[in-house]
Parts: sequence; C-alpha cells; structure tokens
Amino acid sequence: MSSVLAVDVGGTGLKGAVVDARGHTVAVRDRPSRAGGRPVVDNLRDLLADLAALAAAAGPERPVAVGVGTPGTVDEASGTVVYASNLGWRDLGLRRLLEEATGLPVAVGHDGRAAGRAEQLVSGTRGNFVFVPIGTGISAALVVGGVAVAGVSGAAGEFGHVVVHPDGELCPCGQRGCVEAYAAGAAVLRRYLARGGRAASTAEVVGRLGTDALARQVWAEAVHALALGLQGLTVLLDPAEVVLGGGVSAAGPLLLEPLEVRLRSLLAWREPPPLRTARWGTEAGRVGAALLAFERVGIAPDLRFPLGPGVPLSPGVAAP
Amino acid sequence: MSSVLAVDVGGTGLKGAVVDARGHTVAVRDRPSRAGGRPVVDNLRDLLADLAALAAAAGPERPVAVGVGTPGTVDEASGTVVYASNLGWRDLGLRRLLEEATGLPVAVGHDGRAAGRAEQLVSGTRGNFVFVPIGTGISAALVVGGVAVAGVSGAAGEFGHVVVHPDGELCPCGQRGCVEAYAAGAAVLRRYLARGGRAASTAEVVGRLGTDALARQVWAEAVHALALGLQGLTVLLDPAEVVLGGGVSAAGPLLLEPLEVRLRSLLAWREPPPLRTARWGTEAGRVGAALLAFERVGIAPDLRFPLGPGVPLSPGVAAP
Repeated sequence: MSSVLAVDVGGTGLKGAVVDARGHTVAVRDRPSRAGGRPVVDNLRDLLADLAALAAAAGPERPVAVGVGTPGTVDEASGTVVYASNLGWRDLGLRRLLEEATGLPVAVGHDGRAAGRAEQLVSGTRGNFVFVPIGTGISAALVVGGVAVAGVSGAAGEFGHVVVHPDGELCPCGQRGCVEAYAAGAAVLRRYLARGGRAASTAEVVGRLGTDALARQVWAEAVHALALGLQGLTVLLDPAEVVLGGGVSAAGPLLLEPLEVRLRSLLAWREPPPLRTARWGTEAGRVGAALLAFERVGIAPDLRFPLGPGVPLSPGVAAP
Repeated sequence: MSSVLAVDVGGTGLKGAVVDARGHTVAVRDRPSRAGGRPVVDNLRDLLADLAALAAAAGPERPVAVGVGTPGTVDEASGTVVYASNLGWRDLGLRRLLEEATGLPVAVGHDGRAAGRAEQLVSGTRGNFVFVPIGTGISAALVVGGVAVAGVSGAAGEFGHVVVHPDGELCPCGQRGCVEAYAAGAAVLRRYLARGGRAASTAEVVGRLGTDALARQVWAEAVHALALGLQGLTVLLDPAEVVLGGGVSAAGPLLLEPLEVRLRSLLAWREPPPLRTARWGTEAGRVGAALLAFERVGIAPDLRFPLGPGVPLSPGVAAP
C-alpha cells in the first residue's frame, strides 16, 4: 500500500503525518518550526526524516511522495516559495531542496488552498466558499466554481494582508493595519502582552475572556478586524459560506458568535454568509499536505475515513 | 441580419444601442435615468421603444432580443434585480417586465460583469483580471479563469461597497466608509459641493485639478479610497491586471498615475498589478449589454469591429 509524507508548515509548528492511500494515518509527528534556534527548513528536513523512519517502522513499503503546505506566496508549478513573511523565506526552491533531501517526488503548495481542498472533501460545500485558516498568520482559500483561486503569480488568498485599518498597527509584512496584525494567533498574544497582560499562549488569552477585561478588549479588536476583512470578502465574492480553521478557530463560539454579530452590523444591505468552523478543525492543513503528495504521483486517495469530520487523527503508530 | 436592443442602465443615464450580429452599431440613443421625474423602469421602457423604432427605420428585420446590464445584485438566471441602491430597485422582476413590454426575449445581467466580458473580448487579458467600472457607482467584474465570478446569489463584484474607512462617510447603501462613498463619480461631485465647491459635474471637478485645491483634495481622497480597495483585491485575487472603466476613468492619467503611486505605497511586500483604462472606454457597458442579448438567443456576434479598441461607436443610423 502506497503512503505519503505530509507536512503542514506554520509559523509556530510543523505538523507531519504519514498517510496511506486508504486515508489511514500511519503516524503523526509534530515539531516546532524553529526548534533549537535552527532555520525552519532544517527542522522541516529533520521532520521528514522522522516521518520516513516512522513509515519504515510501520511496514515494508516505501513512501511514494512528499506533500508540503506552506504559507505565503507559493508558485506551485515550480515548487518555489516566493515570499513567506512568518518563515523568513524568499524565493526558496523548496521542492528541489526537499527532493534532494528525501529522494522522493515533492509537491509544494499553499497551505490555505490545500487545507481548503481538504475541507471541501468532507463538507457539503462545493461551488463557492471561503476557507480562512487562522493560526500564527492568516490566509484564505477562495474557492470559486470548486477551484481555489491561485492568481497570476500564486499569490492569491492573502486575506491576512488585506488592510482594514489604514494607518493602523504595523504588520510583520511591512504594511499597516492588516487583518493579520490584529486577528492572527500571534497578534492576539503579542497585543495582549504589549498592554501588560501575562500569558504564554493565545489559547490562554482566549481562556480568560470570561474574567479578564484586557483579554476581552484584545479579542474584540481581533474580531473587529476579521469582520472588516470578511465584509470585503463577502461583497466581492458572495460566498455560500465562510469556514474558519486553524488554531484560533478552536475558540469555537467565542469566535463565531461575536464575529457574526459584527459582520452583520457592517453589512447594511445584504445578509452575511453563514460562518462555521472547519470540519477538519486544526487538522485541515495536514490533510491538505497529504492531498498534495498524492496528487503529485497521480493517486486519488480516499481521505474521508478515518480522517472524517469530527474524527481525531488516530494514527496506527502512535506519535511520541 | 439579426440585431439586438442593448441598454446599459446606470444611476445617471441609460445608454442604448441597436447592434447587428456583425458587430455593427445600427443606432445609439441615450436617456437620463430619471428623465421627467419618472421611475427609471419607465424611462427604460421608453428607451427600448425608441431603439425598436430606430431599428425598424434602419431596415425590415425585427430585433431578435434585448440585453440589459444593471448595477447591484442581479440574479441572472431569473432576470431579477435583487437590489440596486442607486436605482431604488429591490426584487424587481426586470426580465419579465421587459419581455411583456417588448415582446422579445430579454437577458438581464450585471453591468460590471457584462462590461468585463466586453473588455475581455478586445484585450489580450484572458485568465485573471479585474474590471472596475467607475460611474455614478462602482462595481467590478472579478474574472477568474476567464469567467466573471457571480457568487452564490449573483451579488459578487460589489467592489464599490467594500468598507475601506471604518466609521467613515455614510454611503447611500447604508454602510459607512465604502469605496463608492469616496471614489464614485457621484461621490466626488457630492463631496466637492458639500465643502463649498461649485460644479455641475464630476468632469468639471476633474477639469479643475490643476487650479483648485479643494478639487485636488477631494480627488486625492477618492484615489486613496480606490487604492485601499484595490489593495485588498490585489492580495486576495492576485490579478494579471486591473482595468478601470466607466465615466470617471475618462480622467486617464489624472486617475491612473496617483492611483498607481498610492497602491504601491500600500503594498509593502508585492508589486501592484498593472493598471490601465478600458479599451472600450465608457462604452463597455453598452457592448456588454449587446453581448447579453446575443447570448440569450444563441448568437455569437463578432463585436470586435467596428466597435474595436479606440474606435468610437459610429452608428449606421445617427442618433439624434
């Protein structure tokens, strides 16, 4: 049975999996993006070596391909990351580099677009929808007629860098007032700390919304920026629904409910699209990366089960 | 030879034409949208009657279809205008109404999307581009993979109602801070008058940019709002180019040059897409409406000549 190595590259963590063509997860293994103060690409290579070892331990068959989803501007045809601000990558020939490291065919795709496809696989949504993964950064898969818009240079879907507050806060990308500068997981934590809050993670800030006025304020500003961005997306694309994914979407109703209220108040003349959190939860990126790998070698995997809606990744070989 | 009646409905004027299947304009006739203080739809019916008479005067053949492009949210399948703020239309069954009035098959489409198709016909642009007609209001044809995005309810492309200044000026649509509230032709004139300027038209305001500081200020704010909207469009869709049409685009370099500078300064990490004015100039809407009519009856017209790039509409029968 063929299997693939899949990695969802994020600004904070690398999420890896070995997945077989029945859609069974043979193993999962994660790694911090900057573990040991080393360049992300070195940690990515190490993680792929770990995944290959896990695959070898699981059975005699060698993995047939590698799929990697990364944020930023990605030229999928050449496997080049043109620019990814959260990773410090510019014109990085990632596919070639990883093909040399692994000896396998590698597909490099945009994390948001790949995750959007994974979400499409398990949801009733087909034609027009928007998938917005909110993690360290924010991107989007803009699905029109069943296909995620790539744009003329592979740079489409950079929803996190839509300017919603002209002259607003500086974003790591160099622009001012981006959605991501307020609403990404990293921004929520950074802004909470900058105003004197103390927390180790975005999840901790979210956990205090019931008791901490500063947390509430920072969160409300994140929701407002996100609503402003979605206002534009809604009137431009008129999507059937907006699906929120990524780590921050784990906030669930704490995110969805105020966001729906705010978006509705910004839209005077039309209904907002339905908002929901991803069926894949925070795993959509990992599944999207596996899809990229299978497509690279012309295999159509059945990824609906056991990685189906609401089913946690349950690897055959447990990750440490 | 078959011909069609075509009308581009705008907030200020109705632009009509009789066009034959060789792409020859048999006649053109315009009419103010609210001539005589009557409802727009009555003036539209009158204009169609005028066009039918002009067609009859030109030869023995009866027109075979009617095409109407309108702003707002348009359900093209049913020919219903769901909402058009500048016309005061809501849930208007325009196709049925005009089929009863004319006895001809009628196609009702979105003005911006139809004009975008007309622009596509005569330009080298094929796959991904954005066409933004700036007239009384502002809309957009977002062309992805050669097709203008319609959205789930026909409401896509409402670029004029992207909020770029949260808590900004009230837009006729009821929202605050829309692109259109600053940059549409009507907004430029309204804002110039509100600050004590005196002018009868937007063109007059533009004509004073060299000599009038107030005109310059209002224009700069229009350009800024447009640039903010295009910033979002650019990072979301990564279009091959942005084409500006409609009456305001007649400003040419007075619009394009400051817009390009402003858009470039808003985009920190990527190049802006090339900006240009429409090949069809302000006629794209009229040609788009003719296209809608021909498609309604399954005729593929050759609209490249004499309505080609840079060639003014030169009707066989002169309009009065």
